[in-house]
Order: sequence, then structure tokens, then C-alpha cells
Amino acid sequence: MSKGEETRERIVAQAASIFNRKGYAGTALSDLMDATGLEKGGIYRHFTSKQELAGEAFDYAWKVAMEMRFADTEQIPNAVDRLKQLILNFRDRRSGLVPGGCPLLNTAVDADDSNPQLRTKARHALSSLLDRLELIVDEGKQRGEICRDIDARKLVVLTLSTLEGALMLNRLQKSSEPLDIACAHLVDHMETVVRAKKKPKSTTR
Amino acid sequence: MSKGEETRERIVAQAASIFNRKGYAGTALSDLMDATGLEKGGIYRHFTSKQELAGEAFDYAWKVAMEMRFADTEQIPNAVDRLKQLILNFRDRRSGLVPGGCPLLNTAVDADDSNPQLRTKARHALSSLLDRLELIVDEGKQRGEICRDIDARKLVVLTLSTLEGALMLNRLQKSSEPLDIACAHLVDHMETVVRAKKKPKSTTR
Repeated sequence: MSKGEETRERIVAQAASIFNRKGYAGTALSDLMDATGLEKGGIYRHFTSKQELAGEAFDYAWKVAMEMRFADTEQIPNAVDRLKQLILNFRDRRSGLVPGGCPLLNTAVDADDSNPQLRTKARHALSSLLDRLELIVDEGKQRGEICRDIDARKLVVLTLSTLEGALMLNRLQKSSEPLDIACAHLVDHMETVVRAKKKPKSTTR
Repeated sequence: MSKGEETRERIVAQAASIFNRKGYAGTALSDLMDATGLEKGGIYRHFTSKQELAGEAFDYAWKVAMEMRFADTEQIPNAVDRLKQLILNFRDRRSGLVPGGCPLLNTAVDADDSNPQLRTKARHALSSLLDRLELIVDEGKQRGEICRDIDARKLVVLTLSTLEGALMLNRLQKSSEPLDIACAHLVDHMETVVRAKKKPKSTTR
């Protein structure tokens, strides 16, 4: 990686924590200069606009969020157990996120009207997360780990809605009560409604 | 009401739809001037600061949201049916909100770091909504309409988290799928888990 590419990546990572906390409109050039230690020219040598930098900052924050949320899940063979780990990661691995919390929640609300390009990025991120979760459910159904009558799409939309809403309440209350309640409910739902009653031999945990 | 008070109320209502859509940082004086048709002096004759106007705008947007969400609920005698109506109001009465959607979601995310006074207002609004919902659950338990083993606090935090998260997903997808799914799930939860099995005679719908 060239020196220029390294600097560009560093700017994106540092800008991400500003955009994710302050929002697009709330982020001033002076904030970005403070965070990166660069002058205006030093930043905009690498990016054509604030919009471009904000887009890359979102991609960066989202990549980190996906790594946190899918951490330690791929090796879990049973789909229900994997979904349970994902739910717990939402609760327990927030400190690894880019400062400011869930970039999807922030960008969905922040970029609602004012920034259609950023909004499109967030919509695609949501779609790809839902698809990835749906695949886990579908595979679990095929392997007999998940009840056949579970609608994969409904389950993943409901799960993500509950977690994102609880994140919002958490943030407002400055307490982990909402996320604790949401996780306990979703884990219980996975065990009592989602998990196939007759466990296949592939269930290991 | 004096002419001055009338003007003040009109400014608050018009500013609310700007702050609720664009956020605190994203709202420029020029936006407020466009929305109200007033010059800077005409607006700030009535408010000491943007912060004060934003606070009153939040209170206004929240009051409207509460009217929409509790519409047609007070006359429903059974607590479970009342909660179900509240859930459906979240889905069906969004067009009556101040433009920009749920002021709690917007303010929780927007005012996270940058505006502690507005954040405090939103936290109090959340608290009072949760208390009001909890009271419905507690009264329903006392009247034997709701299972005795239901934890009122957990139920209302879970319900609100699910609805607010679904609102966020709706907004991003520009589709009502998430809220449809969330409402169907919550209504089913009310019927199958929350409603006391042996219905008391006061159940009328």
C-alpha cells in the first residue's frame, strides 16, 4: 500500500468516528481537521467532496459493525445457536464499534432527507444484512434445525427491528436495560418458537 | 391568546417539521425563515436561541405523536385490546405525525452528543411514555385481563423497542414491511402470551 493510500485509509477511519457521532450535517470541516490532524488541503487531496468522504466513512463503520456482529458465529454449526450468538453480539460487542454506535441507525435517521446517496448506502447495507441472516435461517430449515413453518424473512426483520429499536432506547436511557430485555426475549423466541422440536444430530451447543 | 402568543405557537409548529426532518445541526436559520416566512428578527423576538426553539419544537412534535398513538384507546376497557390498538396506531397513524416521523427516534439519534438539553427532553418523553404504558399493563393485571406473570416493564420496553426499530427499518427501506411484521408479531404476542387465559367479563372486544 502506498503512503497516499495509507493516509487515505487513516482519514476514512478517523472521519468515521466523527460522522457516526455527529451526523453528516453536524460534521464540520474543523471537526475533520481536528480528528485527522490535517489541513483542509490535506484531507481534500484524497477526496473530491465531504459527500465522498462520508460515504467511505459509512462503509468503514459498517464493515467494523459487521465484523463485531458476526464474530465467533461462522464456526457454530447449528443455525439457531448461530442466530443466538448474533443476538448476543449485538448486546455484548458494542465497544468494538466505531464511536457513535450502530452506523445503520445513525445513517437511517441522519441521512433521511438531506443526503440521498448516504441513505442509499445504508439501505443496501440493511438489505445485505437481512439477506445474510435469511440465508442462515434457510440453511437451518434445510438441515432440520429450524421449524419448517418459520418465515425466514419475517424472523430476520423482526429480530433486527427489535435489536435496533432497543439500541435506540439504550442510547436515550444511557442504560443497557432495553437491550438486555430485547436479547432475552429474542433468545427465548429462538428456543421456544424457532428451534425445531426434534433436534438433529448436528446440534452441538 | 395574544397576537404574540399566536405567532410564537405558529413558529414552533412550523419549526417542528424542519427540526424533525433535518435534525438540530442540519437545520439552518434560512430553513426556519423559509418555513415561517419571517426574518431572523421576527423569529428570535420570540425565542432566546435556536436551542430554545428546538426544545419547544420537540415538545410540540412529541405532543402530536402522543395524540396519534393514544387515539381511540382510552375508551377501550380491556388492557390487552388497548395495547393492541396502540400497536396498530404506531403503524396506521403515521401520516398525522409532524413531518419527519417519530420525534423520539429522530431526537435520540440526532441529539446524541451534540445537544444534551434536547437529549434530556427526549429521555423524559421516553420515560413518561413507558410509565403510561406500564400503567395500562398493571391495571390489566389487577383486573385479571393480563397474565399475572407478565413483567409490565419488560413488556412495554420490548414493545416500544420493536416498534421504534421497525420504524427505522421502514424509513430506510421506504416500505411498510418491517412495521407490518413487527405489528403482527406484537399483536400475536399480546393474544398468545399476554392475555390472561380465562377472560374476565369486562372483555368487550
